[in-house]
Amino acid sequence: MASAPIISLLTDFGLADAYVGVMKGVMLGICPAARLVDLTHEVPPQGIIPGALLLRSAVGFFPDRTVHLAVVDPGVGSTRHPIAMVTEHGVLVGPDNGLLYPAAAALGLLEVRRLERDEFFLQPVSRTFHGRDIFAPVAAHLAAGVPPRELGALLPAPQSLTLPEPRCAPDGVEGEVIHIDRFGNLITNVPAGAVAGFQMQRGSVSIDRVYIAPIVTAYAAVAEGSPLAIIGSWGMLEVAVRNGNAAERFGVTTGTPVTVTAD
Amino acid sequence: MASAPIISLLTDFGLADAYVGVMKGVMLGICPAARLVDLTHEVPPQGIIPGALLLRSAVGFFPDRTVHLAVVDPGVGSTRHPIAMVTEHGVLVGPDNGLLYPAAAALGLLEVRRLERDEFFLQPVSRTFHGRDIFAPVAAHLAAGVPPRELGALLPAPQSLTLPEPRCAPDGVEGEVIHIDRFGNLITNVPAGAVAGFQMQRGSVSIDRVYIAPIVTAYAAVAEGSPLAIIGSWGMLEVAVRNGNAAERFGVTTGTPVTVTAD
Amino acid sequence: MASAPIISLLTDFGLADAYVGVMKGVMLGICPAARLVDLTHEVPPQGIIPGALLLRSAVGFFPDRTVHLAVVDPGVGSTRHPIAMVTEHGVLVGPDNGLLYPAAAALGLLEVRRLERDEFFLQPVSRTFHGRDIFAPVAAHLAAGVPPRELGALLPAPQSLTLPEPRCAPDGVEGEVIHIDRFGNLITNVPAGAVAGFQMQRGSVSIDRVYIAPIVTAYAAVAEGSPLAIIGSWGMLEVAVRNGNAAERFGVTTGTPVTVTAD
Repeated sequence: MASAPIISLLTDFGLADAYVGVMKGVMLGICPAARLVDLTHEVPPQGIIPGALLLRSAVGFFPDRTVHLAVVDPGVGSTRHPIAMVTEHGVLVGPDNGLLYPAAAALGLLEVRRLERDEFFLQPVSRTFHGRDIFAPVAAHLAAGVPPRELGALLPAPQSLTLPEPRCAPDGVEGEVIHIDRFGNLITNVPAGAVAGFQMQRGSVSIDRVYIAPIVTAYAAVAEGSPLAIIGSWGMLEVAVRNGNAAERFGVTTGTPVTVTAD
Repeated sequence: MASAPIISLLTDFGLADAYVGVMKGVMLGICPAARLVDLTHEVPPQGIIPGALLLRSAVGFFPDRTVHLAVVDPGVGSTRHPIAMVTEHGVLVGPDNGLLYPAAAALGLLEVRRLERDEFFLQPVSRTFHGRDIFAPVAAHLAAGVPPRELGALLPAPQSLTLPEPRCAPDGVEGEVIHIDRFGNLITNVPAGAVAGFQMQRGSVSIDRVYIAPIVTAYAAVAEGSPLAIIGSWGMLEVAVRNGNAAERFGVTTGTPVTVTAD
Repeated sequence: MASAPIISLLTDFGLADAYVGVMKGVMLGICPAARLVDLTHEVPPQGIIPGALLLRSAVGFFPDRTVHLAVVDPGVGSTRHPIAMVTEHGVLVGPDNGLLYPAAAALGLLEVRRLERDEFFLQPVSRTFHGRDIFAPVAAHLAAGVPPRELGALLPAPQSLTLPEPRCAPDGVEGEVIHIDRFGNLITNVPAGAVAGFQMQRGSVSIDRVYIAPIVTAYAAVAEGSPLAIIGSWGMLEVAVRNGNAAERFGVTTGTPVTVTAD
């Protein structure tokens, strides 16, 4: 027997309202066998970039054929298209505002479909909650086996998303903090490969040009309460404080510049 | 094969404790096939009215035969009855304190059963956590196929709940804010039908008698950062700020009067 | 047909990041039939003792053969072992830092296995996220039927955890507050048995030597807004305010001494 289909969910809806539960009710009505997995619903309201970064960080750990439903949708009710992005390792469903793009690129984007066939929508479609009325039902139909080509026409030029990229500098790599997690770890946009390429077996990280921490390969390389930089679970360089909170210690927010240099 | 039974959950337990997880463990022990869907667990502590409003807003989007487990239970251990409300589109299980009533009415209330048969309870039944010991196990037995009539005697007069109702006024409709969602949208008790009935194709909304916003049919009808009123996903008139937070902008709390007038 | 395997999850990851969702994606890739139940993810960061207490409070309500995945892991990347604790009523998987110990003892500890066989891990294993790379995949393999003995060698002396224990005093029992729940109830470390043993049908509770409340058998025994002490859902003596918040009323934190005396 084939495995039950998986649908992951990422939104900016929070958990205090019933919006996420409502989407799940709609999906189970269409695809009763679907397994529903929350990525997060605490994306900052209308936060397309933080949502896109979290989505990209997670999709690679799901089985092929997973349907990823993502709704951060400040343009709901405007002319932005609802879309499905078909990739080599699953399908993403959501608004065409860039939210899905980085994750789709990471999974190997094959084609983009506009969601046009309203027999796959919940009727009547509201003007304010396409998560419930368009995206969730389409995700459930995909999970139930509807081929993406039946959803609508190809969209040749979906909205991409310009994410902050690290830059090479004379003495290293310049990046920035792109996410701060619950532990106060500062996830940067400097990928493991960039650090390896610079042969920084012995390197260090500065924030706003002030030396912060050495690059190490395990938290335990520094004493409790000491700062460190490490390739973290996002596959990116992170600045952390061992069993402490780096964001609080250094007063850092997303967007803060980070410099990596060889010692 | 019949679809797996669905149980939705709504409580005021929060997610920092393990109370919700414990109820799920109990239910899967009784009905291993059940699909468990959280509506929300962030109802304000002992908040029967906000819980009832959230429950009513959500149940219509679930498949028929769903069992809705709802526990906001300030009277636990007192003489309030544990009940099951059988409706045309599913069964609701919880305390007889009004919490289930609006949702049951919306789903078409058929009959109410007292939960009396303790072979369907977790033993011993505590005096403080009927969610775990009575409501969750009964919900699981219902999901597993136990007919409601086996749970106990009919309860002829369950506790109803008086919700704030909108009133007709000489120049429009007077209602109030009943819920503020994560986006700061002000959900009112003025239903779509009331606005349509007043032919308010061109209408506007005042809060505390001060003009706030025009009634529109899409967020995009106003500029970014501008206020608007719209029939939202609850099927009620909502006051919003396009890609902003109306509750913060206008300093509004639940209970604030809202007036709808024709232009 | 055998019931689907159950995996419970308890972590200090919070829900704003996608870490929990990623672990679930990994597990469903290995054991697609697994039912995943969150206990809580809001254990305070690095809070081994609060995590251990919550885990112990919950595991007894799950079916036998449940796999309990628990990750509060300040020592990730150091020399602490990853382990599985096999009990009479299920298996616990997590770091060997005491987190699993009280729950395992409550379930009847049989043996402890080190997690050594890397064919059960996600490759490559990171130095920062063993929840994703070791614990989640091992939990999923256990749920899929891998016998614990295949995971690695026996660990004869796992890390235990010294929890605060109540003490007998001349005029009663001295304990302390070990957890404060969402309702502001003060869960103490005084078990039901200790109170019963002292024949305290009529007893009372003091906090910091100040009389607070009588011991009762139902919230309804006192007036709304009045304090009370009761054997709560943890099986421990709790101090509560009827439909109020005892933690706020009395300004109490975990660790505050509590004395139980006969009247």
